[in-house]
Amino acid sequence: MILILRPDQPASSTTLAEIEALVREHEGVEMRVHQFEGSRHHLTEVHLVGQTAAVPSDPFALLPGVLQVVRVTTRYRMIGRHASDRRPVGFHYNGVDFGLDHLHVLAGLCAVDTPEHVDRMFAACQESGLETSRMGAYKPRTSPYDFQGLGASCLPWVFESAGRHGVRVVAMEVTDARHVDEIRDALERTGNATGVMLQVGTRNAQNFELLKAVGQQREFPVLFKRGMGITLEESLNAAEYIASEGNPNIVFCLRGVKTHLGDPHRNLVDFAHVPVVLRQTRLPVCVDPSHSVGRGAVAPDGIPDIFHVTGQGIVAGATSVLVDFHPSPAKALCDGPQALLPEDLPRLVAYARTMRAAYEAAVESFQGEPAGL
Amino acid sequence: MILILRPDQPASSTTLAEIEALVREHEGVEMRVHQFEGSRHHLTEVHLVGQTAAVPSDPFALLPGVLQVVRVTTRYRMIGRHASDRRPVGFHYNGVDFGLDHLHVLAGLCAVDTPEHVDRMFAACQESGLETSRMGAYKPRTSPYDFQGLGASCLPWVFESAGRHGVRVVAMEVTDARHVDEIRDALERTGNATGVMLQVGTRNAQNFELLKAVGQQREFPVLFKRGMGITLEESLNAAEYIASEGNPNIVFCLRGVKTHLGDPHRNLVDFAHVPVVLRQTRLPVCVDPSHSVGRGAVAPDGIPDIFHVTGQGIVAGATSVLVDFHPSPAKALCDGPQALLPEDLPRLVAYARTMRAAYEAAVESFQGEPAGL
Amino acid sequence: MILILRPDQPASSTTLAEIEALVREHEGVEMRVHQFEGSRHHLTEVHLVGQTAAVPSDPFALLPGVLQVVRVTTRYRMIGRHASDRRPVGFHYNGVDFGLDHLHVLAGLCAVDTPEHVDRMFAACQESGLETSRMGAYKPRTSPYDFQGLGASCLPWVFESAGRHGVRVVAMEVTDARHVDEIRDALERTGNATGVMLQVGTRNAQNFELLKAVGQQREFPVLFKRGMGITLEESLNAAEYIASEGNPNIVFCLRGVKTHLGDPHRNLVDFAHVPVVLRQTRLPVCVDPSHSVGRGAVAPDGIPDIFHVTGQGIVAGATSVLVDFHPSPAKALCDGPQALLPEDLPRLVAYARTMRAAYEAAVESFQGEPAGL
Amino acid sequence: MILILRPDQPASSTTLAEIEALVREHEGVEMRVHQFEGSRHHLTEVHLVGQTAAVPSDPFALLPGVLQVVRVTTRYRMIGRHASDRRPVGFHYNGVDFGLDHLHVLAGLCAVDTPEHVDRMFAACQESGLETSRMGAYKPRTSPYDFQGLGASCLPWVFESAGRHGVRVVAMEVTDARHVDEIRDALERTGNATGVMLQVGTRNAQNFELLKAVGQQREFPVLFKRGMGITLEESLNAAEYIASEGNPNIVFCLRGVKTHLGDPHRNLVDFAHVPVVLRQTRLPVCVDPSHSVGRGAVAPDGIPDIFHVTGQGIVAGATSVLVDFHPSPAKALCDGPQALLPEDLPRLVAYARTMRAAYEAAVESFQGEPAGL
Repeated sequence: MILILRPDQPASSTTLAEIEALVREHEGVEMRVHQFEGSRHHLTEVHLVGQTAAVPSDPFALLPGVLQVVRVTTRYRMIGRHASDRRPVGFHYNGVDFGLDHLHVLAGLCAVDTPEHVDRMFAACQESGLETSRMGAYKPRTSPYDFQGLGASCLPWVFESAGRHGVRVVAMEVTDARHVDEIRDALERTGNATGVMLQVGTRNAQNFELLKAVGQQREFPVLFKRGMGITLEESLNAAEYIASEGNPNIVFCLRGVKTHLGDPHRNLVDFAHVPVVLRQTRLPVCVDPSHSVGRGAVAPDGIPDIFHVTGQGIVAGATSVLVDFHPSPAKALCDGPQALLPEDLPRLVAYARTMRAAYEAAVESFQGEPAGL
Repeated sequence: MILILRPDQPASSTTLAEIEALVREHEGVEMRVHQFEGSRHHLTEVHLVGQTAAVPSDPFALLPGVLQVVRVTTRYRMIGRHASDRRPVGFHYNGVDFGLDHLHVLAGLCAVDTPEHVDRMFAACQESGLETSRMGAYKPRTSPYDFQGLGASCLPWVFESAGRHGVRVVAMEVTDARHVDEIRDALERTGNATGVMLQVGTRNAQNFELLKAVGQQREFPVLFKRGMGITLEESLNAAEYIASEGNPNIVFCLRGVKTHLGDPHRNLVDFAHVPVVLRQTRLPVCVDPSHSVGRGAVAPDGIPDIFHVTGQGIVAGATSVLVDFHPSPAKALCDGPQALLPEDLPRLVAYARTMRAAYEAAVESFQGEPAGL
Repeated sequence: MILILRPDQPASSTTLAEIEALVREHEGVEMRVHQFEGSRHHLTEVHLVGQTAAVPSDPFALLPGVLQVVRVTTRYRMIGRHASDRRPVGFHYNGVDFGLDHLHVLAGLCAVDTPEHVDRMFAACQESGLETSRMGAYKPRTSPYDFQGLGASCLPWVFESAGRHGVRVVAMEVTDARHVDEIRDALERTGNATGVMLQVGTRNAQNFELLKAVGQQREFPVLFKRGMGITLEESLNAAEYIASEGNPNIVFCLRGVKTHLGDPHRNLVDFAHVPVVLRQTRLPVCVDPSHSVGRGAVAPDGIPDIFHVTGQGIVAGATSVLVDFHPSPAKALCDGPQALLPEDLPRLVAYARTMRAAYEAAVESFQGEPAGL
Repeated sequence: MILILRPDQPASSTTLAEIEALVREHEGVEMRVHQFEGSRHHLTEVHLVGQTAAVPSDPFALLPGVLQVVRVTTRYRMIGRHASDRRPVGFHYNGVDFGLDHLHVLAGLCAVDTPEHVDRMFAACQESGLETSRMGAYKPRTSPYDFQGLGASCLPWVFESAGRHGVRVVAMEVTDARHVDEIRDALERTGNATGVMLQVGTRNAQNFELLKAVGQQREFPVLFKRGMGITLEESLNAAEYIASEGNPNIVFCLRGVKTHLGDPHRNLVDFAHVPVVLRQTRLPVCVDPSHSVGRGAVAPDGIPDIFHVTGQGIVAGATSVLVDFHPSPAKALCDGPQALLPEDLPRLVAYARTMRAAYEAAVESFQGEPAGL
């Protein structure tokens, strides 16, 4: 059971005491207090855990400091969308709203290589009016003899360039807890105009120690990529690890899965799961067309497959798109073949907006009169 | 090498003789003549097979009766989209154009049960302005003890009702060559106002004897469903079986695949393959959201998943949608849980058109200036 | 409920009448009589179908002509191993015992090509003391342009050679009901010294019309190969189709499955399912190491992988092994790379016997004192 | 190119200088020196990396201190079995020989719970003459709300009990670098009679930071479990990470894979890969029947499936078997249903030896006269 307290309540310590008194009446039930910094409010949730099935909700709902009581019906206690759950989806970070009403394109380099390329990329973002990007400094690679990323050494000039071009959020993969510290240090030294969304990659989807590490800090939100070889349920449980440690600011990213079907793309695109994640959780959903599709090819209608699946994600409700770009794909140190050119970015943004408009029109037509399903 | 002759050429027998003379100069090369009845023209193709790599194309291209010479570069000789291939996609059947410019919704019953249900369904199609539907009379079922379909006995009243409601094409699965004869007989007896598109189901995707049987007739077009457990390439080879026997009027249907990922839907939706099929072949593409998604659930935005994946198929270029309906899903003898209600049909058609309009807008914006990929 | 009558009972018509009288007392229950020609006895089973849950078994068990009453607890009514089911596993055919006490190696050509190769192969079988072989005349191939087998034309000389070399059972794939007739005709014309086990291949595992066709005849037993892309349960249901039409003489063949794991072999070997099939059904189990492993490679211990997996099948309880051979693999028209040489056959037989002896020793050590599981 | 120096050579520094002089002649080539403590010798390998394709091997082979020159032909530089590679497989640790000539059963608790259960288990190992076991203290679990293991607190009494019962090697999963330190500390405090083989679990198969951590120490060997959702090649690359950091003492463990085939076992058993791993690498292979098969069932021959697949692993060349036991499976905190009882251990050991004897007999029959493959 989750008790959501009225925000910015002066009497919240009173409320906590009242709750505690009620909890004490029930054996085998414990309470845990979670504090969240929302975009406009300070929020407090009290989670009752243990044998809560027989605990009535009314006494809690009647307390003046309690805004809402949510009965937790699924295994995703923290990230789950529970029955009669009116809490909003998403979060604000560094001035950017990662809720359901804004579409973000996170365009950038899979692997940082030179300052010129990074600068060129952030400039392209700025020209297209984007405040979000992606940059890879720490690369987990299948073979120990492949390029492993530039690591901490590139962070200062990456962040400096991002700040200079008005990019407020850079998604960046981390593979070890110490990378979070390195990123924090580098951001502080560069004056912090830009921010970072920590990315947990598909190979670390069940690296529970890493999940706990990014969950135990609240400074940075987390872009969690589903495991390409595990079930959606296992991936959602992994996201729950992050939230259960205290960090609820998570974007759930679909990026294709590996199957036995000799896929003509790099992976089998799993963007039909967008509405499933939105139904089962309160996490905004990102799609990664680059890693799903891999090397780009163009359909006879003139539209590249990477665009087509981007559209598929957006008309299903995704609000973020993570895309690989490189000014010179042939020279890219990682995943070059799937990179778009910076000059393709305006067209991608326009295409994404066309699809978003279609999605919004469809949603509007479903308001008021629900489907007969 | 494929030589496409000028249509309706009075001198085509002269042309054939000229081609034959040229072919005789090359050892190990044979010619095969294929005649097609197009919507407006009678077309002839001459296929050169065998050791054609060293055969020059110019002498053939210079013959006055030859419209175009297509070098076959892939293994899909008949269905493949070859380099510099300007032949159109699709076909006409019983007054319906299955090309790339028209969107068709084939809405109907997975398994025919009662005349009332069939009539109710065709009436719903008519009310929504649809000329296409689906009806299952022969059902291949996993267990021998499951309902196996009403078979030939229901065909007369199914076709009579279709004709009465202006439904021109009914997609209908066949599992044996004799079913084609039964369908032909029933259509003839009911006066033939409606027509049938023979459906080859996913379990028969590599039943090569059945593929040959539906390929050796040209009366009915074929809706071929990809194998849910084989590769896309194997499925396209199976479609090639149909065409290589003489019937090029094929719609290729995506219907989801089985994976190891504990899919939250009935299958993993494979509609990202729409542009791949359109690129590799000249077959129009259908999507089957009902068998992909299975039991319907509604996303928090108010839109059912079955709709969402329909949209994903359409914005990627699919031009047919095969959907299960039933007036009383709880009483359906097969796949009831995934059926929509007839009263949902207008909304589905409206949704599909919204998505089609977005697709067309996107395609238009890509004309003229190709992507920098 | 299955009633097994006492074999060769003169009074069996009386028994049937008595059963019928008892059945009439229960609404919604029907009886079906199945006659089987066993190796030494004529057997009759009466199956009660419909709402049998409330039908008591005692009145039937007390009838003097009833040997045993088996309550059917699973969906595999005909092939299933039901609780307290004492019926034996397997069958006799043309003098060969396909029960659990005999190990058979079915060594032969994947695709028949020349009389010399066929003769050479049967001679190798004879030299190794084998009465069983395999020969492919009808080949279902992924592409319509691949070699499709010699078909009916090769049957006379194949069967003549088999008979001459004392091969009593040739496993032979069929892909259409008319192939069964062609085989029957050819056997009759060659005097019938050899026999055929009809093989249903993995691509036809859910071709229900073919399954019904081989089930509606009882002259030939059936070697059913599991579907490489469907579940074991779906494959067992397919075998049930054969039996439910009247033919219980089935060998269930494991042949590897396709996965997404980039298998270093042609397929992922599924021989851990041997004990599962033996537990859930009364079918003897065959393993096909050639199609599982594909192209042979030799382990550092000097033993080819094809042998190693053969051993894995045998120590788990398989009693048949289907292996591809070819006197000149480089010239084979189908699957040449996975073929062993005829001169490898004695070594394979010796290896198989070593593994069988280990299996029998292990089984013996488990008699008397069951495991504590 | 790998240069293996003569062991215990007094002049090895001379040899290194001679090699360095030769290397300097080739641009783009670097040398790396690896020192190994073998069971009887101190070994030195010099690896030449970079553009070595054009470097001739003869000048190095002629140096008096060089025993052998191995041309590296695969991507598995450290763990790979290269052409003409005569280096032995395996290693010694704490008095136990993990080479190809000894069969080890590592029987123990999936998750440590009470001192009594641990003691009971080690006593069972001792009674069966085993020097090896497994114990789980750190448990990576799919859900954050599942039992996560007792962690460092149980190590003292676990190691004390192991030492007391003569268990020399305990396989123990670690999920973070700090666990290695905790284990080292606990072993030192308990006097170190027992030793630990660090286990990397299937969920961490591509946790490259953890792989590097266990590779950067040489005190403990590593039992690496293949990823259940990645390819064998990716898993071998992961093992290469460990070796490339300096620790070559690795046992490669097969534990079943997840497929889409609705497996009747917990996973699809992948023990047909045993000879593949032995062919591609110089790593000894372990099989884990418990996690492959999951909940035990008994075949009609009286042998549990867990035993059957154990036999399948051994006859293919596996030399270690990792098996879950629990004195009271119903009370186990993790994976109880798949645990055998301690009283089953003698029977498992006897069964394993029967299978090992069959394997050795088969290998012997292949010596001298190689197969005609």
